[in-house]
Amino acid sequence: MQDKLTLMIPGPTPVPETVLLAMSRHPIGHRSAEFQKIVKRTTEQLKWLHQTSGDVLVMSGSGTAAMEAGIINVLSRGDKVLCGDNGKFGERWVKLSKAFGLEVQVIKAEWGQPLDPEAFRAALEADTAKEIRAVILTHSETSTGVINDLQTIAAHVRAHGTALTIADCVTSLGACDVPMDAWGLDVVGSGSQKGYMMPPGLAFVGMSDRAWTAYERSDLPKFYLDLGKYRKAAHADSNPFTPPVNLYFALEAALEMMQQEGLESIVARHARHRAAAQAGMTAMGLPLYAAAGHGSPAITAVAPEGVDAEVLRKAVKERFDILLAGGQDHLKGKVFRIGHLGFVCDRDVLTAVAAIEATLQGLGLHKGTPGAGMAATAAALAG
Amino acid sequence: MQDKLTLMIPGPTPVPETVLLAMSRHPIGHRSAEFQKIVKRTTEQLKWLHQTSGDVLVMSGSGTAAMEAGIINVLSRGDKVLCGDNGKFGERWVKLSKAFGLEVQVIKAEWGQPLDPEAFRAALEADTAKEIRAVILTHSETSTGVINDLQTIAAHVRAHGTALTIADCVTSLGACDVPMDAWGLDVVGSGSQKGYMMPPGLAFVGMSDRAWTAYERSDLPKFYLDLGKYRKAAHADSNPFTPPVNLYFALEAALEMMQQEGLESIVARHARHRAAAQAGMTAMGLPLYAAAGHGSPAITAVAPEGVDAEVLRKAVKERFDILLAGGQDHLKGKVFRIGHLGFVCDRDVLTAVAAIEATLQGLGLHKGTPGAGMAATAAALAG
Repeated sequence: MQDKLTLMIPGPTPVPETVLLAMSRHPIGHRSAEFQKIVKRTTEQLKWLHQTSGDVLVMSGSGTAAMEAGIINVLSRGDKVLCGDNGKFGERWVKLSKAFGLEVQVIKAEWGQPLDPEAFRAALEADTAKEIRAVILTHSETSTGVINDLQTIAAHVRAHGTALTIADCVTSLGACDVPMDAWGLDVVGSGSQKGYMMPPGLAFVGMSDRAWTAYERSDLPKFYLDLGKYRKAAHADSNPFTPPVNLYFALEAALEMMQQEGLESIVARHARHRAAAQAGMTAMGLPLYAAAGHGSPAITAVAPEGVDAEVLRKAVKERFDILLAGGQDHLKGKVFRIGHLGFVCDRDVLTAVAAIEATLQGLGLHKGTPGAGMAATAAALAG
Repeated sequence: MQDKLTLMIPGPTPVPETVLLAMSRHPIGHRSAEFQKIVKRTTEQLKWLHQTSGDVLVMSGSGTAAMEAGIINVLSRGDKVLCGDNGKFGERWVKLSKAFGLEVQVIKAEWGQPLDPEAFRAALEADTAKEIRAVILTHSETSTGVINDLQTIAAHVRAHGTALTIADCVTSLGACDVPMDAWGLDVVGSGSQKGYMMPPGLAFVGMSDRAWTAYERSDLPKFYLDLGKYRKAAHADSNPFTPPVNLYFALEAALEMMQQEGLESIVARHARHRAAAQAGMTAMGLPLYAAAGHGSPAITAVAPEGVDAEVLRKAVKERFDILLAGGQDHLKGKVFRIGHLGFVCDRDVLTAVAAIEATLQGLGLHKGTPGAGMAATAAALAG
């Protein structure tokens, strides 16, 4: 039905009306005092979200731009890095690192499994020459719905003493706790169309003091993504290049809403939705794709047996106007994914499970008692 | 007065209500068939705007991102390039080229003067070893309000036979004729907050077949700005990274409006507004900053004598809610700039001149007959 589509994908995520309407304000001059106030205010709010006293910089770009900026600003050609790879985004950072001439040692885990912190500890301890300059990994691996143990891996990196932790927090920030300073994260990349409850178009990079020290020695060529330019401008409540003014209006509105809700509530909400989605799927006999205990609070990947996941996903869209995500690469047709990230309330999760259950029932593919998924979800939401 | 500010700066430029409201639609999935239709449609429209049968690619970024992409995708480390520099943006492309390890030969002109095509011809003819790989220049130099003779310079580049023409058309595209194929331009960079009548956040790069041939040998490291990825995705009506979906809604609406108006009308309108702004300023005894006959159709820079340009500019904003641009770098306080770019009608230019004239009169700084500026502008608008 026209205008009725509900997004339950891991990005773009649903956007509150307040934020949408902020987008439609007429742009103002990006060098005006009025805009500087917005930059100052949102910079403070971003530090709150990242739980850091360091810099959080804003660029016009996607989450990949944020990660590229984070990597090329603290490393030099030929530097050795450890890259975690247990999904499509892990793969991407390996490719990106190689494109910039870094020497990449990959620590892999099967898709659906979490990265093993012990593998990182072992590789870092074996590096007695302290040649490893950075560990690059994805916190919430969107392609598989797995959350990696960033806290433990970052602690191993700190114990190494030289390497930096560069984390893709694109689908974890604003969905789970990412205390940048407390965990000792050095570079945190994210994008606006996720936990921020905004449309895509803004990229964010948090930088620790250690990251800025590394910036001074970095020799990879850069200009548009040179974070030194963004830092200098941000300290004057400005941007080095024309920023997407209307997306800044949206950012201000969205961060205001997030502060009103509070970080603890946001984190609890996403954890509750993970539990509810997992309970509903399990009760319907639909296996979860992520290993038990390692599901992301942002997204639940489901691997139905005896059913083409694409058939199910399309039927849910056609019958109930809910857009679920499909599987990527070799998971296409094998997996569908429920995004419960950002502006998602209990009703949305209940509705998504109900729609999946009704669709299964309609297709004659429900393996349990019709209504069992709903009941389990309702119980999980009640806590 | 609240909500009354009118932008007469060279970006962000005024945005039509139709485009603003398109921005506030709820985002849709960027891998959906519905979004693919928008990518397909806007790609065709962009080719129309660039007057090319080649590719025009869309990225999340600013105009600088477009230019960086254009440069790093067709060149290799150590390549020799000629850079035109007659203002702040010319300076920027020199810095950017050096940041990527290019060997830069600068052809300068004083601020306010156009680049001399003969200087390019001479340098290109002297290069009998055909070492010059590209000529990089700004078509409309926003800092000084000068339009450079891109057509003639590009013809000299074609005569050289090896070098490519990489043009910053950020404030010329959608304001004057930029027939990419007819002039033999190889790379054309632009940004959404200019002639496109949109908020900032989208960057565009037009690429000729020669540019794609150069892409194959380019060795500068790239990933987010790797245009090969954008070309591959565009040919499947898609994007390599999550695109700013809402800015795409705006793009579709804006390009639709531009096609309705027609390229000839758009070009004629900007030329008329240049003539009207120039006539008004001259009639009030305010000298134009750009050399006679070389003013940009997008922006008129004015260098008042015996008046601090910032004082005048601020008074116009406070009294009449019109935002003019100030001078950049050493021109601060010496120059103000009237943007007449994008969604600007005759009334807007008439109003801007009237407000400047009334302000001068109020400050006791009008050097001619009060009303002379208005009369000259009205006459120029009548054609």
